Amino acid sequence: MAKEKIVLAYSGGLDTSVILKWLKETYDAEIIAFTADIGQKDELDGLEEKALATGASKVYIDDLRAEFAKDFIYPMFQAGTLYEGQYLLGTSIARPLIAKRMVDIARAEGATAIAHGATGKGNDQVRFELTAAALAPEIGVIAPWRLEAFREQFPGRAEMIAYAEKHGIPVTASAAKPYSTDRNLLHISFESGMLEDPWFDPSAEENEDMYVLSVSPERAPDQAEYVELTFEQGDCVALNGEAMNPLEVMERLNDLGGKHGIGRVDMVENRFVGMKSRGVYETPGGTILFTAHRKMESLTMDREVMHLRDSLIAKYSQLVYNGFWFAPERIALQALVTESQKNVSGVVRLKLYKGNVIGAGVKSPVSLYNPDIATMEADPSQAYDQGDATGFIRLNALRLKVSSGVEQSKN
Amino acid sequence: MAKEKIVLAYSGGLDTSVILKWLKETYDAEIIAFTADIGQKDELDGLEEKALATGASKVYIDDLRAEFAKDFIYPMFQAGTLYEGQYLLGTSIARPLIAKRMVDIARAEGATAIAHGATGKGNDQVRFELTAAALAPEIGVIAPWRLEAFREQFPGRAEMIAYAEKHGIPVTASAAKPYSTDRNLLHISFESGMLEDPWFDPSAEENEDMYVLSVSPERAPDQAEYVELTFEQGDCVALNGEAMNPLEVMERLNDLGGKHGIGRVDMVENRFVGMKSRGVYETPGGTILFTAHRKMESLTMDREVMHLRDSLIAKYSQLVYNGFWFAPERIALQALVTESQKNVSGVVRLKLYKGNVIGAGVKSPVSLYNPDIATMEADPSQAYDQGDATGFIRLNALRLKVSSGVEQSKN
Amino acid sequence: MAKEKIVLAYSGGLDTSVILKWLKETYDAEIIAFTADIGQKDELDGLEEKALATGASKVYIDDLRAEFAKDFIYPMFQAGTLYEGQYLLGTSIARPLIAKRMVDIARAEGATAIAHGATGKGNDQVRFELTAAALAPEIGVIAPWRLEAFREQFPGRAEMIAYAEKHGIPVTASAAKPYSTDRNLLHISFESGMLEDPWFDPSAEENEDMYVLSVSPERAPDQAEYVELTFEQGDCVALNGEAMNPLEVMERLNDLGGKHGIGRVDMVENRFVGMKSRGVYETPGGTILFTAHRKMESLTMDREVMHLRDSLIAKYSQLVYNGFWFAPERIALQALVTESQKNVSGVVRLKLYKGNVIGAGVKSPVSLYNPDIATMEADPSQAYDQGDATGFIRLNALRLKVSSGVEQSKN
Amino acid sequence: MAKEKIVLAYSGGLDTSVILKWLKETYDAEIIAFTADIGQKDELDGLEEKALATGASKVYIDDLRAEFAKDFIYPMFQAGTLYEGQYLLGTSIARPLIAKRMVDIARAEGATAIAHGATGKGNDQVRFELTAAALAPEIGVIAPWRLEAFREQFPGRAEMIAYAEKHGIPVTASAAKPYSTDRNLLHISFESGMLEDPWFDPSAEENEDMYVLSVSPERAPDQAEYVELTFEQGDCVALNGEAMNPLEVMERLNDLGGKHGIGRVDMVENRFVGMKSRGVYETPGGTILFTAHRKMESLTMDREVMHLRDSLIAKYSQLVYNGFWFAPERIALQALVTESQKNVSGVVRLKLYKGNVIGAGVKSPVSLYNPDIATMEADPSQAYDQGDATGFIRLNALRLKVSSGVEQSKN
Repeated sequence: MAKEKIVLAYSGGLDTSVILKWLKETYDAEIIAFTADIGQKDELDGLEEKALATGASKVYIDDLRAEFAKDFIYPMFQAGTLYEGQYLLGTSIARPLIAKRMVDIARAEGATAIAHGATGKGNDQVRFELTAAALAPEIGVIAPWRLEAFREQFPGRAEMIAYAEKHGIPVTASAAKPYSTDRNLLHISFESGMLEDPWFDPSAEENEDMYVLSVSPERAPDQAEYVELTFEQGDCVALNGEAMNPLEVMERLNDLGGKHGIGRVDMVENRFVGMKSRGVYETPGGTILFTAHRKMESLTMDREVMHLRDSLIAKYSQLVYNGFWFAPERIALQALVTESQKNVSGVVRLKLYKGNVIGAGVKSPVSLYNPDIATMEADPSQAYDQGDATGFIRLNALRLKVSSGVEQSKN
Repeated sequence: MAKEKIVLAYSGGLDTSVILKWLKETYDAEIIAFTADIGQKDELDGLEEKALATGASKVYIDDLRAEFAKDFIYPMFQAGTLYEGQYLLGTSIARPLIAKRMVDIARAEGATAIAHGATGKGNDQVRFELTAAALAPEIGVIAPWRLEAFREQFPGRAEMIAYAEKHGIPVTASAAKPYSTDRNLLHISFESGMLEDPWFDPSAEENEDMYVLSVSPERAPDQAEYVELTFEQGDCVALNGEAMNPLEVMERLNDLGGKHGIGRVDMVENRFVGMKSRGVYETPGGTILFTAHRKMESLTMDREVMHLRDSLIAKYSQLVYNGFWFAPERIALQALVTESQKNVSGVVRLKLYKGNVIGAGVKSPVSLYNPDIATMEADPSQAYDQGDATGFIRLNALRLKVSSGVEQSKN
Repeated sequence: MAKEKIVLAYSGGLDTSVILKWLKETYDAEIIAFTADIGQKDELDGLEEKALATGASKVYIDDLRAEFAKDFIYPMFQAGTLYEGQYLLGTSIARPLIAKRMVDIARAEGATAIAHGATGKGNDQVRFELTAAALAPEIGVIAPWRLEAFREQFPGRAEMIAYAEKHGIPVTASAAKPYSTDRNLLHISFESGMLEDPWFDPSAEENEDMYVLSVSPERAPDQAEYVELTFEQGDCVALNGEAMNPLEVMERLNDLGGKHGIGRVDMVENRFVGMKSRGVYETPGGTILFTAHRKMESLTMDREVMHLRDSLIAKYSQLVYNGFWFAPERIALQALVTESQKNVSGVVRLKLYKGNVIGAGVKSPVSLYNPDIATMEADPSQAYDQGDATGFIRLNALRLKVSSGVEQSKN
Repeated sequence: MAKEKIVLAYSGGLDTSVILKWLKETYDAEIIAFTADIGQKDELDGLEEKALATGASKVYIDDLRAEFAKDFIYPMFQAGTLYEGQYLLGTSIARPLIAKRMVDIARAEGATAIAHGATGKGNDQVRFELTAAALAPEIGVIAPWRLEAFREQFPGRAEMIAYAEKHGIPVTASAAKPYSTDRNLLHISFESGMLEDPWFDPSAEENEDMYVLSVSPERAPDQAEYVELTFEQGDCVALNGEAMNPLEVMERLNDLGGKHGIGRVDMVENRFVGMKSRGVYETPGGTILFTAHRKMESLTMDREVMHLRDSLIAKYSQLVYNGFWFAPERIALQALVTESQKNVSGVVRLKLYKGNVIGAGVKSPVSLYNPDIATMEADPSQAYDQGDATGFIRLNALRLKVSSGVEQSKN
């Protein structure tokens, strides 16, 4: 009889290597190793061989970068998403894509479960598993770090190394960093270690070697650089006039932002699993895109549409952060967001300088800004009669006057 | 019989000088000139004499700066207010205070109306008049610029100068600037003129002389500077450990922000009267305070309280922008906001550098961040059992699974 | 040279007859009379002749009932709309349709303006004119009741009758009712007159002759009647198993509701123009449809989608009430609403009895309710492990415990 | 050494009797039995003896009805709470009170844990335990039905009866009802059994004996009855002019509503633990109070305050339903709600008739409704100039016109 199959999210590092072997032993199953290239720039060479050597029956290494940019990052940026006023959701938005591909593979391979190496304290486990639930409820999930047997077998790193050595798993000796990172096309995150003290200052010069995607503002060029982003219906489709697909846009903006010290965030955030944690992020390209998008909207988006959409940013951000990307409520919100972007087209010029993303002009063929109306000079369009404001104010004031009269009558 | 009295918001400039005289003539009334010191740093010397010389029967010059900081700026910053994602509402928040003082004077003097020189196209007229309606519905409002007779008499600046000369109104010959400004303790705004073209780049070096409160990031010191803000229940009560009242905090932060090129915003915004307009703002101290406040909250505010409050920022901002400060819905929202700040106490350390406000640590005696829980190391507090996450995820996933099953059954 | 043309919303009553003649004289224009049949059941016979006799150059009498039901009532009911918790928006939702048809005619006829007989105190003027602005900003609007000249010429009904007689306008002598009404396919409204006293009780037996579409609960049959509504994607498509178009559904439900004393509402409401007013409504079919729709959703709509949509009902209702049907923010909200209805399909059984609409069962091929999961008996589906609830609760409780601990440490 | 103490929510029924004994054996602890009188009208006589006979070391039977009405029901009704558009939250709002009293007793007694007999599938376990977490994080919770050992020992009712007999626990032979109920001062709920089929019609005459608090509309008196409710700041303080405390109000309204067939609801609802379930409720007094409160608000509440509050009802309801009564976000929302009720005072007259709660007039000394303004007759107050509406509409239309112009330019 054929063995059961399990699809494992595999990175080639110690944890997922050990898990690969452990799953194979524990479940007596075929393990299909899966690695998504979402722009983490890890060394993917040799990964297939390593997985096979560790015991995988099959290996998938898929380049999902273009899909990541087009179908995940771009729709999210249309919404103006910013979790708790600070975080551009670089890790959160990648998880649903990875999990989606995993269940696709599981189905294609006839696997009964997917497995991942995320811990039981973090958000990623939730994001992986909610995605799997939404897309393939019939497929099981194995999260070894949440299994008591696994945690007892591997109380620390030493036991994992011993296990790896015993089973001939090749372990790369890497200089242990005093923090953990997660990188993709949108950002890199840092947490744990010294960062667990919220009074610790990661912006201090002595911590500069932690950063990967950007120089510090202090080390950025003394010369500002201008960039123009062209938007169509809320999506950036060209840089400096050159048409690009979403992946190309993100890569180019990352280069630009990183060069100019843009997009570092240091924050305490609220995890879905109930605790606060401290994270540091570099999101160089995303920060430029976020700023440009708002400026494009400011010229082309109707006031009430903007205020309505803005009132839903907290909700949308929370959904993405918590892993509900494929949930029906996120999809319903996206319908509103997409509709709101119908007219968000034009060009934004930005000035990049030592950490700053500075607006330097915006224009659009479908601009809703009419200087003839707004001008303090005579209005050539005759669209606005100052006398109209009297009635406007008086009717807006009416309920306030009535309330005030009632209040006064109480005294 | 005693003449009617009108209280005029008077600045000593050409417009309100002409209006003072015109009101006196047109309404055969006593004009009481009122000037609020809200930190505009205009020359207030000689203003009383000038008003009297122009025909005022009485003059009030009131220092409202402390009240402005304490009762208007501070409560608004508790709410995390940011209009359309960009504007810190520096002009908007000052208007209710000015109008409140005007109706107080009107009542004390037995005046029947207040008058102002705001145009019929802007937001300020609305803010003044909604405040008056909410606080003193029995008092009338005269807005000469919305009166056809006035606009016909003064189609341009030339007619105003002629009128002033004819009536012996002293007019200061000022070099006309190609834009208009409004300054107070929180910010200075620029609009009109060259700024009406949204493609015009005010950040270009050649426009540097427009700015008043800040140097450009380029001209800011090469050396970063640290500052610590101490918060109690959402309000900043000390800088670098030195206790200060709100006014002192704002002044000190303005100095710091201005020195380091912080707080410039260039945006297209949506006015309440229905049009878009372009504004440039310098809000040096407010930008530092805004950033610090969010960071203080990130450590001390409950997650769900933050998400709820965040979902209401767009609404609160809109109310302040539109002039509904004294409206019952703003007061109801404030009750929620004030309650949300009960635990927002501690110290935020910031690094100021060439336009950047960089988090450099946060701490609090009432921190809700517990590194013992969040740590990836063994949890000394035993507050978190990783196995709990399994049930948490499974129940969060349940409705997604059921929905997904139904979807699949459709195919 | 050809005369200017004006399209007038014409009912054949005294007001719009006088306005027709007055417009023709005052503007020296051709008046095109337009009457929409939206189910008001007025006598439309002879209307064309009357309009022509009064001076109209052309007459349109258009049956818009099917469009009203399909494109206005149905999308609105998908949203679960209820203004201020009570009003099903029967008048509000009709106005955009009428105004849309008017500007269509104006364009087809080359007219430069539309005119209506709505007063300056009500909501209808706003709804007509916002629709015109959104669909045809180039077309002018004439609202005689807001023109001082018109109001001075016609200070009361007597002057209008005299004017009509003088100009040979046929006036039907109708017994004046001490209130005004507005009727269409969705409802009939009553306001003014005796109803202006909010303590007046319109439900008292002696006022029974005011009502048009329904008997009182007291007079309704002693025998309950069952009806089954079939929904597809949020829309009712069949009654008692018989397929019907939206117009047929509304007419049939009106008959049923009216027979059983269903759908009367008596309320004080807040007009957009700033005042409160008192209205009484009969919405027999709409009340049945509203109830059925919610019950259909309860079985088939995802929890979080419902809660999100519910949080937007106040906003959506406000937009419809205020006349912003064709505004981009209503259209954006509708995108969300439509998406939310994708799965709202099935059958609802209701029992109608003396004013009550009582749920009597609901079923669906895409039900999200799984009694195997919910049951207190053993769960045959194994989809729910009671032990999961422990982790679920513990992680939901975590932030509360941390907050509570901090609170206790303060004491 | 003293034994550990556990406070058990005890009803005297089979489940909690078995649990009492089981806890005592399993944990070798003293069991303190606690029964809250929240209006369930169960036989409380003999309960103390029974608990002691079953093995309790101490028994608390506390009358919490007045506190329930005053501090839980009343604040919730101020918010206009209605879960998923239908449910008045009768069970949900009682749980936090019971759990609060349990932790108070636990602290007074030095107990280390509380225990309850709620199942692992329902909402009540969550509500109990979130309350305990928020009020007393140091106290443990034991939920036997979520413990595998307990569920294995008691797979069905037979094993529980056998256990009871073996341990001499007195079991009242009650005719098993084919559904479960929960009753308190606000309502009684029914679920399970035959109700699990959502197509089952509980309103059919043959099911009439299920109901407890009300007759069916069909069996209600043929004669309508009027009642007047007096409100002060959102709370009902008198009925028919007679001052009453909240408990008296609820009891009297329950009598009235029950007599007239008011307040039955049959719905499918979404549980916090992720599933839909079907519930039938009788909430006679609450339904009257809910209707009266909205009508009182309609006369006295500012428009924008109402719309803001209404937009938060879904959130507030969700919080109560899910058990977050003592969570900081509910408390923050309550601050807004309480502020919104400052002016909600006056008298509402209602007509009760066969299931209907019909508005029959409303009045208030602080009414915001001014018939002089709203009237279609000449306005004696001169507060409203119809001409003002022109400017009001034109400025509201401005953005729509600009948008429309841009749309047309695209074609």
